[in-house]
Formats: sequence, structure tokens, C-alpha cells
Amino acid sequence: MTGIKALADHLGISIGTVSRALNNKPDVKKATRARVLAAAAELGYAPNQSGRNLRKGKTNAVGFMFEAGDPGAHGGDNFFLSVVASAQSVFKARNIDLVMLPCGPDETPVDYLKRMVARRFVDGIILTATTRDDPRISYLERTGIPFVALGRSTSGTRYRWIDLDFEGAAREGVRLLARHGHRRLAVAIPESDANLGYVFRDAFLDALVENGLDPQPDLVFRVESSEQGGLDLSEQLLARDPRPTAVLLSYELMAIGLYHGLQNAGLKPGDDLAIVSLRESPQIRFLSPALPSFRLDLHGLGAELAQALLDEMQNRDVPRKTSQGMLWPFEALPKLT
Amino acid sequence: MTGIKALADHLGISIGTVSRALNNKPDVKKATRARVLAAAAELGYAPNQSGRNLRKGKTNAVGFMFEAGDPGAHGGDNFFLSVVASAQSVFKARNIDLVMLPCGPDETPVDYLKRMVARRFVDGIILTATTRDDPRISYLERTGIPFVALGRSTSGTRYRWIDLDFEGAAREGVRLLARHGHRRLAVAIPESDANLGYVFRDAFLDALVENGLDPQPDLVFRVESSEQGGLDLSEQLLARDPRPTAVLLSYELMAIGLYHGLQNAGLKPGDDLAIVSLRESPQIRFLSPALPSFRLDLHGLGAELAQALLDEMQNRDVPRKTSQGMLWPFEALPKLT
Repeated sequence: MTGIKALADHLGISIGTVSRALNNKPDVKKATRARVLAAAAELGYAPNQSGRNLRKGKTNAVGFMFEAGDPGAHGGDNFFLSVVASAQSVFKARNIDLVMLPCGPDETPVDYLKRMVARRFVDGIILTATTRDDPRISYLERTGIPFVALGRSTSGTRYRWIDLDFEGAAREGVRLLARHGHRRLAVAIPESDANLGYVFRDAFLDALVENGLDPQPDLVFRVESSEQGGLDLSEQLLARDPRPTAVLLSYELMAIGLYHGLQNAGLKPGDDLAIVSLRESPQIRFLSPALPSFRLDLHGLGAELAQALLDEMQNRDVPRKTSQGMLWPFEALPKLT
Repeated sequence: MTGIKALADHLGISIGTVSRALNNKPDVKKATRARVLAAAAELGYAPNQSGRNLRKGKTNAVGFMFEAGDPGAHGGDNFFLSVVASAQSVFKARNIDLVMLPCGPDETPVDYLKRMVARRFVDGIILTATTRDDPRISYLERTGIPFVALGRSTSGTRYRWIDLDFEGAAREGVRLLARHGHRRLAVAIPESDANLGYVFRDAFLDALVENGLDPQPDLVFRVESSEQGGLDLSEQLLARDPRPTAVLLSYELMAIGLYHGLQNAGLKPGDDLAIVSLRESPQIRFLSPALPSFRLDLHGLGAELAQALLDEMQNRDVPRKTSQGMLWPFEALPKLT
């Protein structure tokens, strides 16, 4: 959180003027005061008036922001809940509590985030569901509030992120399918602006080339990140002539609708269309035939996120100059039958 | 952060009007309130915590407590997330924010709750996953903190609750199966101490009698509330001789493992074992053959919970003398083929 000196530096006016503006003294021009207040809100300035804890910006709480309304954004239930449970254990050992901040469908994520910052519920924030262009990241960079992004974005130049290794999974997935003789591969990514979709698509197309295959952008399918999206995908795949012989899914719950659509068309998942998916989860564990999928250590991921945010909070007075990222690996190469 | 005076100056209206707008008083024009709220958000207005919040116990936040660790307790992902998204819209219109409080697996729910209360994160609380004996309820009754329980308990004598109408669903489910000629009915309930398991079991046994059938307590199966629990259930059902011809599930994700187990044994769900489940959800919508299940209006439930908690908060100075409950109905009687 920004102090009065940083605020004064940012505005290029004296600390005294900023202070008088913030305290609403009469000897400050209206325009100056408006400028100071706007900058204070924008930079997340914390006033010194509300007791020791507030002076230190200490609520001993951190926020895990996520989108509660989007059917796909919450990543199939147990994804976030497992991450959160594990992160919370790490925070708790430091006498800090994690609260989840659900952004509803009737508000943009950046507006929601600004309100949370204004309300000073938390000392630090974990962002999720990063989009390609994500104004939350530039906003938090400006405010100086410690945060970590679970996911990357083209926004932001000096933030800490941890993202799933979509590149690695796309590469391994394509290599596996190519080794099994597939030459006409499709990929399914979210239709939303989720950054992972772009990363996964690009890595997929690169991997095709690496395996001596033609990158075919028309075999990149953007569908809803949900069971329904998988059903839509089955229809789109079946309409192609020649049909792709394999598809890589960016989200495992798509498989539920995809299996259904294939079976309704008299086709057998696996035999008539090879399918490889990210992330084994309880919901798909009982699909028949079994869905080849990568695994994720969600427990470890949650702990890593918590540790990264604790580091950011500890170093809050040392502004970041560059971004710092980490790719969290997918595990256990899927097996094709 | 901006104070109320700065906010009033910025808007060029009186502090009194700003205060009434922020406190949602009826004598403020809609357009004015919208302007005030927009400016408050933009300028990062927050009520003075050292004054107002500590005196009145006002954080303008409410907590939605849930268990992040338990595989079954979170009710199949979109259950809580849909409820929360809808509740949040209601709170937001009153200038209150909902935060989710995840209780991890390394702590008892009552210890976690006590810490949350001590930390004064929130002005009111929604409890979920109530257990038969639930010390959280008696604790909150003693503290006088406004709360609403999503679920009932034998603990507590003067609290507000909203629970799913498990009795109604059990009654309708048994009647439906009996009408289709089934005489040997089983029921699957959570193996945990979740209160719903007891309610559902008792209602199930009563309904058998109402339909002229023998209540058979040995056909009450307690399994994990999960896909895996459904697989365990299939094994237990198949081991019975004579085998039940129908089963009522208290949790829809059990069906995923149950279908798998039956199909592996060469049996067809629906034909060889009639299955009726609570709550249609995206995860089971594509099961083949279709799973007959009751529906729930989660959006309405979330709004109802929020309204109930707002009422409790408004009447916090008038201690409750008795409990007040509401059964939230299941909809759309399942169809058996």
C-alpha cells in the first residue's frame, strides 16, 4: 500500500500539499485536491488515521479473488477449493487468514477488485482467471499492494505470477498423439478471453511444427469451458471433413459433453477420436473409456502460491522492477490405448 | 482512502445526503445514491474503521463459511458458487460485500469460526454443512452475532435457518419408485455427521411406511459424498442378496461412481437398478442413460439466504427467542423411464 511520500512523488507535489489535500484543509485548490484524491484511490493510499494496524496496512488477511459467476472460470470446483485449502494452511502458520473474494457476474473483475482494495479487507491478493489483457494487474502494480497472479497476462510489467505449464502439456500432448500416428489434430480452448487459451493454442501450433505436422488454425476450436462446451465441440468436430483424428482439451469437464456427443453419434471416444486432456479430476475419473489426462499437484500449487504472496508482502517496501514467474508442471504423461 | 467529507466535497452535496445514500436510507433519490456509490468506489471511500466499525461492529462484509477440505462437503462445486454469486448481488445492492471463509482440513469448523469472529472480518455469517451436533450454532447464539444456517442441526434453540427440503424429496422419490413397482428400496446418505444424512434417512424410512413398504434399516448405505462413494455404493448394493431394485441418492456426484460400478458389472443403470437423485447438475447432465433427479433453484436460494441474513443483521438488537426455519423446495419431480 502506498504511503504519503510515494503519493507526493507520483504527483510531483509536496508532501505538505498532499497532506493538506487529504485532510481537506481550505488552503488547497479544488482541482489539486481532486487530483490527490483520485491518485490516492488509484494508488491504494492508506491514511494514517485509523490505529496501529491500519497504519501498518495489516489486516492479517489475504484475499483469493475468483469469478463466482462464470461456469468455466472456477475450473471445475475442486481445483480452486483444493488450492485454497492448501494455501490457507501455509498462511495460518503465519497467523494470517485467507478469505475468498467472489466476483459476481454483475460486475467487471477490475471494478470488483478496486472495491475490495478500497474496503481494505486484505493485505495481499491472489488473482485468478487472468485474461490476456487484464487491467487488474496494471491496477495492482500501480497501487503497490502485494499480489500474486495465478496465471499470466500481457498486462503488467513487474508482477509475480505462477501459471500452469500449458506449454509443456501442449508439447507433450501433441508429441504423444503424433507418436501414435495422428496427423490431423484439433485443440479445444476457452471461448473467453482467458489467457491460458492463447498460451495453449500457440504452444499447440508450435508443437505441431516441431513434430513435422502442418499447423492448422482452423482446427483450433473455441468453446465454453464446461460440459456443454464439450458437447458443442463434438458437433463442430463431427462436421469437419476430413474429421480430426485427435483432440487436445484445455479443460477436463469438456470431456463429459464430448463423450456424450460422440457416443450419441455412434462413435467411441478413444477409438474413433483420440482425446487427451489437462487435469485428471474426480469428475472425469469414471469416464468410460478412461480419459487420458495430465495430473496436477494442487496441494503443492496452493502452498507455492501462498509462499509467493508471503514473500511479496514481506518485500512490499522494495518495489519490483521486473516480473517474476514460475511454471507449475503437469505430471504423469497420459497413456493412450 | 477517502473520508466522507472529502466525498461530499468532491460531489458538491452535503455530508448528510452522502451518509444517507451510503447507508441506503429511503429518502435519497436513486440517481443521487448511484452517483454517491460510484464516487465512493472511485475515490476509495471507506468508513472510518477506528470509529464506526469498532463501535457498531460494522465491517460492511458478511462471511460465507464452508469447508474447503472435505471432498463432499462443498456439494459438487457449482452448488456453493451459484448460491454465493446470487447472494452477493443482493448484498452488494446494500453496500455490503460477501467474502467466503474457507475452513481447511487441519482445523475444526468451530475453532475456525471462533478465529473469524475474533478477527472481526465480518458483521454476519452464513454457515453451511451443518452437522447433527454443531457447536458453531450454539457458539454463535451465545455471541449474538447475526447468522443464518444453510442447514439444520440438533444444536441451537433460537437461530434462523434455511435448509433444502430433504423430507419432501425423500417422500416424492419413494412414492415415485413405489408407483413403478419397486418394493426393495435403498438409500445412500453421507458417511459424515452431516445433518442432512439423518434427515434424509428418517424421511426415507417414513416414506416407505407411508407407501405400505417395510422400512429396512439395512438398506441405508452410508458412503462418502463423492464419485468414489458412489463406486463403493455399487459394490455394497451388488453384494446384497436379494439386491435392491432401486436406490435414492442424497448427492448427485455419487451417481458417477455408481454408474461406473454397475456398468463394469454388466448392469444397466435405470434398467437393472432404478436410480433417483437429488439435484440435477452440469456434471451429471450427460450421464447415459439420463439420471432422474430433482432440481434446485440455486439462484433463488442464494437470494433468500442473503435476505435472511440482512434481516438478522437489522434486528441484531432484538434477541431471538425461538428458531425460525424455511425449507427450500426441490423442483421438477424426476421422470422414471
